[in-house]
Amino acid sequence: MTQDFTEKTLSSTVVYDGDFLEVRKDQSMLSDGAKATREIVVHPGASMIIPIFDDSTILMENQYRYAVGRHCLEFPAGKRDECETPVETARRELLEETGYTARVWKELINIHPGVGYTNEQITIFIAEQLEMGVPNRDDGELLESVWLTIDDAFSRFHAGEITDAKTIIGLFLARHYCTRR
Amino acid sequence: MTQDFTEKTLSSTVVYDGDFLEVRKDQSMLSDGAKATREIVVHPGASMIIPIFDDSTILMENQYRYAVGRHCLEFPAGKRDECETPVETARRELLEETGYTARVWKELINIHPGVGYTNEQITIFIAEQLEMGVPNRDDGELLESVWLTIDDAFSRFHAGEITDAKTIIGLFLARHYCTRR
Repeated sequence: MTQDFTEKTLSSTVVYDGDFLEVRKDQSMLSDGAKATREIVVHPGASMIIPIFDDSTILMENQYRYAVGRHCLEFPAGKRDECETPVETARRELLEETGYTARVWKELINIHPGVGYTNEQITIFIAEQLEMGVPNRDDGELLESVWLTIDDAFSRFHAGEITDAKTIIGLFLARHYCTRR
Repeated sequence: MTQDFTEKTLSSTVVYDGDFLEVRKDQSMLSDGAKATREIVVHPGASMIIPIFDDSTILMENQYRYAVGRHCLEFPAGKRDECETPVETARRELLEETGYTARVWKELINIHPGVGYTNEQITIFIAEQLEMGVPNRDDGELLESVWLTIDDAFSRFHAGEITDAKTIIGLFLARHYCTRR
């Protein structure tokens, strides 16, 4: 990168503090000295898990996503609780949502789903050597586990049935990983 | 998909109407009859462009993203203006941000960057047969064009330098496309 466009925060105010979302409105100074308003959805971060069985089957979830008005096929994921590390969030969410524990955890990458308006960062893990337990879902968290081959998942992606950005990235990472292990 | 978890909207209120962000708070009825609160960032939709030159060089942008506090290397993208179709947004944003026009446009897929809390949908295009003109950037839109090979872009992704979700998906799509054209 040659040019430096770093901005400086001049002021910061919480303008909406809801049940799930917090919105901040900041004034920033741009690198050219001009001022700008920046609105941000403040997010604690999240972890996403790509559960891969010994035969390369992957575990996904079918759930209704109110914000987009449709069911989504996604990898298990969830928000960071206070004081949790990314892998702790991943272990907890995998257990809560699917009932599985994993003996092997591999941290892959961090992604930003919405650089324009949220500080959310998602840490992506592969979970292997999976063992079934009992799911412990949050109230109102209605979802079902779906077992798929990676090829089947890609067919559904190419058919427009998988549209969740973090999950699409997870599919490419899973395919790359499975061809090399 | 076997199970149907479709929710019904019971009420809907705009709780924050800012300069850039609008937040809605809805009450919904879950498929099991329980009620839930859903907070959503309302978004008009966006288009992202993967500009590919005849020699398979791609065009990206370096810009500072205040929400994540760092520079991001991204494909050109922007929000839908009223009455625009996705390809019209793509043409406008490519011209405004980079100065390029393209003779060939191919719509690839739609993705949802944040199914948990926004209805944003991004339509991804490939733009080919590019011709240079003059960029016409919005006020406060400080960015620079960066030309890269796809291999270089993947090296930067694997080094953790490319973290924007839509851009990562675009890189995988670009690689797939260029190996087949």
